[in-house]
Amino acid sequence: MLDFNFHNPTKILFGKGKIAAIKQHIPGKSRVLVLYGGGSVKKNGTLNEVFAALDGYTLFEFGGIEPNPSFETLMKAVEMVHKESIDFLLAVGGGSVIDGTKFVAAAALFEADPWSIMEQGGAPIQRALPMGAVLTLPATGSEMNCGGVVTRKSIQAKLAFQSPHVFPVFSVLDPEKTYTLPLRQISNGVVDAFVHVVEQYLTYPVKAKVQDRFAEGLLLTLIEEGPKALDNPKDYDLRSNLMWTATLALNGLIGAGVPQDWGTHMIGHELTAMHGLDHAQTLAVVLPSLLTVCKENKQKKLVQYAERVWGLNQGGQDQRIEQAIDFTRQFFEKMQVKTRLSDYGIGKESIPALVAQLEAHKMVHLGERRDITPDVSQKILELSL
Amino acid sequence: MLDFNFHNPTKILFGKGKIAAIKQHIPGKSRVLVLYGGGSVKKNGTLNEVFAALDGYTLFEFGGIEPNPSFETLMKAVEMVHKESIDFLLAVGGGSVIDGTKFVAAAALFEADPWSIMEQGGAPIQRALPMGAVLTLPATGSEMNCGGVVTRKSIQAKLAFQSPHVFPVFSVLDPEKTYTLPLRQISNGVVDAFVHVVEQYLTYPVKAKVQDRFAEGLLLTLIEEGPKALDNPKDYDLRSNLMWTATLALNGLIGAGVPQDWGTHMIGHELTAMHGLDHAQTLAVVLPSLLTVCKENKQKKLVQYAERVWGLNQGGQDQRIEQAIDFTRQFFEKMQVKTRLSDYGIGKESIPALVAQLEAHKMVHLGERRDITPDVSQKILELSL
Repeated sequence: MLDFNFHNPTKILFGKGKIAAIKQHIPGKSRVLVLYGGGSVKKNGTLNEVFAALDGYTLFEFGGIEPNPSFETLMKAVEMVHKESIDFLLAVGGGSVIDGTKFVAAAALFEADPWSIMEQGGAPIQRALPMGAVLTLPATGSEMNCGGVVTRKSIQAKLAFQSPHVFPVFSVLDPEKTYTLPLRQISNGVVDAFVHVVEQYLTYPVKAKVQDRFAEGLLLTLIEEGPKALDNPKDYDLRSNLMWTATLALNGLIGAGVPQDWGTHMIGHELTAMHGLDHAQTLAVVLPSLLTVCKENKQKKLVQYAERVWGLNQGGQDQRIEQAIDFTRQFFEKMQVKTRLSDYGIGKESIPALVAQLEAHKMVHLGERRDITPDVSQKILELSL
Repeated sequence: MLDFNFHNPTKILFGKGKIAAIKQHIPGKSRVLVLYGGGSVKKNGTLNEVFAALDGYTLFEFGGIEPNPSFETLMKAVEMVHKESIDFLLAVGGGSVIDGTKFVAAAALFEADPWSIMEQGGAPIQRALPMGAVLTLPATGSEMNCGGVVTRKSIQAKLAFQSPHVFPVFSVLDPEKTYTLPLRQISNGVVDAFVHVVEQYLTYPVKAKVQDRFAEGLLLTLIEEGPKALDNPKDYDLRSNLMWTATLALNGLIGAGVPQDWGTHMIGHELTAMHGLDHAQTLAVVLPSLLTVCKENKQKKLVQYAERVWGLNQGGQDQRIEQAIDFTRQFFEKMQVKTRLSDYGIGKESIPALVAQLEAHKMVHLGERRDITPDVSQKILELSL
């Protein structure tokens, strides 16, 4: 096991009707800015439930945070924070809204150019406004971690940032709030969570037995529950399991003390920034190819994955690995997320520009061994056609 | 899944040499009281390492906290806290030292009679001194939870308390610090952690898929690594896995959203209080009998346990359950912890007094269904002879 520090102070309020409890976790007399996305939380009543729970606070609202939240939009929220002397932020939505709110929390108290938060080697975040979250879409894990991803449309850049200052103080996880989600978002959420786990698991072994078992447990749960959730949108147990699994997939726990490979996410970000694919679509496209191209490096863990997650213990090692990768692809397809660039109308001619963007964003040493260089990324993209 | 709140703010500093980092987590100029047990941390150098890491603070020390820390001893530490105006406590040791330090942290700021902290329906803890821990014995999980157990010798009472105010601010987990432990403590630690997991797992199913998988992952790790650790006391990987497993076994995670049955612990506490058995010895004695007596209630989860933890999927259900309980007992014996009251010289004549103590401590509705009444506890003890 590698050395690690682990700290996750976010309070989780899990279950039906837990929105009513948020008042206990926001200081009295706060001026609270409620941030949300495209308006579905207005239509389905969640926003009203939040406002009712915040009776007595001075409330402001900021809607319109997009999927892949944009720097341009978020800076308008930062302006509002300053103008209205906001002292608590409450995100109501999925990963994009929560990520965006984290950025607003940090940018509002940031003294340099806020975009430098997003740049490698940029100024570190020293403080942030306190924030909470009401999660409506299980997928990214943002509700219980300290990272976020922001897109700057003007330069087609989608980049990640992290700071312990942006852990949500609390997050409400009420599985009933996911009943009205479009199935495409459930599909995407399951794929996103699955890939988060794989990126902390399919590297090289460091004898971290518990982390491996936990990762495998999350993958097995997604495989068992994911497809069923598409058929049974109001099954509380299914939705509960997906919600808690997606949170645990990226709250720091399974990644503590093990190598990590975020290559799939980084290559995927460029696909979203340049071609507008959903985040999970990019992951479903990139992961199977990345595993294939990197199968020598990942050999031991791929064999373990084949056996413990897919029950493959017959035949030669290579055959089992190939079959496990194939099952992974089939699982994404079963979740109704297509796994080929060609499914999204992207051809070979698009690859050089994608690789150039990876270079522009300094994503030139990806993978657990930092050996996914631009030419390897190119191979991965070619295999994804 | 049942509704739950989950919050665990303890920072974990895991790895070789992490004691050196504690300074970053204790406010400057603190008056720090370092608490420890019987002196092994003096002999093996850990205490000196801690003092070196705390260069610049005003330091005090309080040694002599016993296994099963006593109210009588701890109240002397409380006196010292008051006399020396201590503002940070640092436990250096295993679960007993950490539990004891938690009690001191709460009792030092407690306005009523401190023993009422331990009594059911006693005054709640409203605040506590901040504390940290340097763990030397993986077993109880106290280093990352908010509970403790204290014994009052004068009345042969061993009781538990809980409060969010006594989460350690940080805990150092350096596997090398366990190399000098007597093997009996490693054995006891593995059994203690195993039983913690079982008590949050072997109840009735609530479709909490991730909690089940995580619990099974911890049990499998203990089964794989525990016996090997007895033969290889300086194997860093083995000790790392045991240490992190014991912490995760009781940090609130696997118990969130599921029923729990702490009957084995509660019956075991009376055995320690009256007969002086090691804590883990009591658990190894009580658990197999409790599972047997309660096998109807626990049937579905016992079948799952038999299959996923012990690989038993042949034969009738009852047979698999019996075999799984038998394997559990064999595992404890393999860990060199005896599993019969008679192994400790305790006969049938001792049982009525044990049951009377359970009644005196209001432990009359144990188990996940609150149906382990004193007569059921009696049956369990009789089956443990």
